[in-house]
Amino acid sequence: MYKNATMQRSAIVDLGSNTARLVVYAHEPGKWYRLIDEIREPIRLGAGVQPEAGLDEAAIDRALAALKLYSDYARATSLESIDVVATSAVRDAANRETLLSEVRELGLTVSVLDGEEEARLGVTAVANGFALRDAWVVDLGGGSAQISHMVDRDAVDCRSFPLGAVRLTETWLLGDPPKTSEIESLERAVVQQLAPLVDILRASEHPIVAMGGTVRNLARTIQKTQQYPLPLLHNYFLSRAALDELTERLAGLRTRKRARIPGMHPDRADVILAGALVFRRLLHVSGRDGLWIAGQGIREGAFFERFLPAPHRVPDVGKFAVQNLFERHAQPRRHTQRVRKLARSLFAGLASLHGWGEREAELLDAAAVLHDIGKTINHYDHDHHGEYLVESAPLAGFSHVEQALIALLVRYHRKGSPSPGRFKRLFQRDDRRRLLDLAVCLRLAEKLERSRAGRVRDVEVEIRKKSVRVTLLAAEPPFVELWEARKQTGFFERVYGRKLKLEALGDEKEKAPASGDSIAGESRSRQ
Amino acid sequence: MYKNATMQRSAIVDLGSNTARLVVYAHEPGKWYRLIDEIREPIRLGAGVQPEAGLDEAAIDRALAALKLYSDYARATSLESIDVVATSAVRDAANRETLLSEVRELGLTVSVLDGEEEARLGVTAVANGFALRDAWVVDLGGGSAQISHMVDRDAVDCRSFPLGAVRLTETWLLGDPPKTSEIESLERAVVQQLAPLVDILRASEHPIVAMGGTVRNLARTIQKTQQYPLPLLHNYFLSRAALDELTERLAGLRTRKRARIPGMHPDRADVILAGALVFRRLLHVSGRDGLWIAGQGIREGAFFERFLPAPHRVPDVGKFAVQNLFERHAQPRRHTQRVRKLARSLFAGLASLHGWGEREAELLDAAAVLHDIGKTINHYDHDHHGEYLVESAPLAGFSHVEQALIALLVRYHRKGSPSPGRFKRLFQRDDRRRLLDLAVCLRLAEKLERSRAGRVRDVEVEIRKKSVRVTLLAAEPPFVELWEARKQTGFFERVYGRKLKLEALGDEKEKAPASGDSIAGESRSRQ
Repeated sequence: MYKNATMQRSAIVDLGSNTARLVVYAHEPGKWYRLIDEIREPIRLGAGVQPEAGLDEAAIDRALAALKLYSDYARATSLESIDVVATSAVRDAANRETLLSEVRELGLTVSVLDGEEEARLGVTAVANGFALRDAWVVDLGGGSAQISHMVDRDAVDCRSFPLGAVRLTETWLLGDPPKTSEIESLERAVVQQLAPLVDILRASEHPIVAMGGTVRNLARTIQKTQQYPLPLLHNYFLSRAALDELTERLAGLRTRKRARIPGMHPDRADVILAGALVFRRLLHVSGRDGLWIAGQGIREGAFFERFLPAPHRVPDVGKFAVQNLFERHAQPRRHTQRVRKLARSLFAGLASLHGWGEREAELLDAAAVLHDIGKTINHYDHDHHGEYLVESAPLAGFSHVEQALIALLVRYHRKGSPSPGRFKRLFQRDDRRRLLDLAVCLRLAEKLERSRAGRVRDVEVEIRKKSVRVTLLAAEPPFVELWEARKQTGFFERVYGRKLKLEALGDEKEKAPASGDSIAGESRSRQ
Repeated sequence: MYKNATMQRSAIVDLGSNTARLVVYAHEPGKWYRLIDEIREPIRLGAGVQPEAGLDEAAIDRALAALKLYSDYARATSLESIDVVATSAVRDAANRETLLSEVRELGLTVSVLDGEEEARLGVTAVANGFALRDAWVVDLGGGSAQISHMVDRDAVDCRSFPLGAVRLTETWLLGDPPKTSEIESLERAVVQQLAPLVDILRASEHPIVAMGGTVRNLARTIQKTQQYPLPLLHNYFLSRAALDELTERLAGLRTRKRARIPGMHPDRADVILAGALVFRRLLHVSGRDGLWIAGQGIREGAFFERFLPAPHRVPDVGKFAVQNLFERHAQPRRHTQRVRKLARSLFAGLASLHGWGEREAELLDAAAVLHDIGKTINHYDHDHHGEYLVESAPLAGFSHVEQALIALLVRYHRKGSPSPGRFKRLFQRDDRRRLLDLAVCLRLAEKLERSRAGRVRDVEVEIRKKSVRVTLLAAEPPFVELWEARKQTGFFERVYGRKLKLEALGDEKEKAPASGDSIAGESRSRQ
């Protein structure tokens, strides 16, 4: 996994007001990337920072200790590059040169981002992490909050507000738990700061995407409460109702008690209420019923500037995410391509029966790309392992229910009776039918490539009154493919309500084995 | 994954009396291997074969259909080699040349094994699949059963008996369900055949290891009934009591009903009772209280003859299995080696406190090798992913509880409070303490390699009355390692009941950051 000629390892250090974080990516520029390490430190650099004041000495010491570690790590592991980006705590501090000169002595190069640059990196992360062209991107850090309008995947109108969770807490929330009057003052300050944006936000239909550790932690806490069936934060919809409820709860608790709420990160427990209040006010004044969580932030934005040439955008977020996951668990490419092609042909040929459109074609294609990735774990049960791999990380560009559908298509690509299982709660009315209709296409495609030899070049589908005739176009008799596919006729008939008739062009005279129902079985687990 | 210069893909076809199976291995000879594909076909070649009679035409057609598929597959996927081995159904058939000449026309080379060769391949599989030097290896197929004595990992005294499940069913069990008298006749025949072995078996203390689809299917059915917590058949202990109970149940059911028992493979439902009766009798006459299931068989034996030079034995079964799993999900080797070394030193230094021996040192070492393999799935939660990978396939040379311990050590190698979770049922009295004692060693070792730079070359452990002093031997100040390791003092004290004092040689004057309890935190999931 770790070495090939064009692979690079790039590290980004995000020196935030609350947290410093080193992230290391292995990548082939433009092709694939994966996070390979991360060291996070709650340095609370922004503690005590008011615009007019400087970083205090203890905070500088904590930051330097973290940066020394990162510098050592980079040297020890021979990273190709390490970029430090610093945000509001540093840029707003009068004495920032004190810190920066010491950092340079460690051999590190620091970019102090201005508010607009910081906001742009957040937009780059969102543009590469969601299948959205337009959104309001809100990045709430410890020192400041950036609010940017993304239009056509580009950052326009980036603004920075002094609404960071650490800063607001230190300014307004002095009691533990804070007094009601303190909370009200904070909320008034938030509303006042947001005032210039309110009319634009209300008039816009673009969704809000929120990033930063504070909102992720709010979302995680709510997921825990609700026993959310996927271990994914990215692309989670945090509803206004759930946020209101959690905010009320946090407001009534001392820090020590907040830290014990399942999902709450102890070192955020003191400042998380301020962050919750900002988002609550934002949703209220903008008239939204919730917001989407971004798992990425400016670190990923900074990474994408290394990974891709300007304008630093992957052409298709969903397709890239699927390909990136495939590259991580790569399987023979020609077989994969053939299964994709056959699945697409079957889907198109059956269109008048299932009635699904382009989005379902994309889900089917994603599952076709990923159907065998579980083989990197074990051949036996590779359908189950593949499901595990698809579920184990966010698949950018797909909603959670879509990701669950792709995982289930992988799970049922060779056998079993497709059912939503623990994703049932996420399923809407038609999702079960989507699963079944697509599963038939993928499974038939896989069986038609059973010899992995590309013998079935394509299929022709003819819909008749009570049956569907699928003709295999093959250069040589596709003996095993026909045999395997015919075992799926029962599944086909249950789903599509018609007989399935499979024929190979020119194979009429081929000798069939004597025992029709028992040749060429699935391999089974025998561990 | 699929290509490098020294990798080969070798296929073995096992042409058995009940089933034909193609298995394909990717491997670097002598270094690692993995199964990458399998096509199984229930050809029932042995149907109707009595020693004096020939293969019937329908059976020959089914076998040829299967072999044509395998030959096509091999051509289409450009396999480096394909070897067909045929067992009793072919060797015992008077008209075997009819089949063999047609097989040769497909371009395949067939070895018809005699009973002793067949038995030897089974022993080779067991010698490379279990940490046993001596055992009785019983391979029950459709046509015959091979019983071999493995002594010092070598096959001695290999015998073949006409006790295959298909053959016995066709000879004795004519009713559906069979009559009591038919079952009794079969059992008498079994006892009579085994008579020459009974005294030797009774006098021997070597365990019985059983292989073949029949016994695997019996074990799987029992595991389903008992909701066994691991998805592993290999190295499962099938108790005489459980087998007796299942045999009684099977004897009372028609084939159609047997096929619906959870775990039962429908195409074995007619012959599985005969197999169960053979094993039941074998356990009774030999006075054993159960037998061990082998997930491998003659296919693996034949593969090992390609994979390793004579005598086709890996030097250490457990070490090889761990290394093979590591190679499948390879991580940076130097970091891995250092964590192994530090874990070993800590384990040795703490020996007077934990009292564990060489076997525990091996378990700890296995977990140290595998601790990061979950990173191939995702950096976030790689401890959980690593547990999944360790559990998902048999780890030859380790018992199931040992494999569970290794999985749990991987799971808890960086955080969390180790507990057996769903493996609780497998745990014996001391296993929880084994888990905790070893987890402390592994986690400290990992933290002492936090910068992945090898700065801590080794440790010295000094046991005092109320504390343990661990001195880090380091060329340069191991700042982050010390910091991270010190966060584990609470865990250490809970497990070992003494204070942990960590010092680096020569680091006394190093400046510590101001906020002692909050630097260099774990990375956390933020998906």
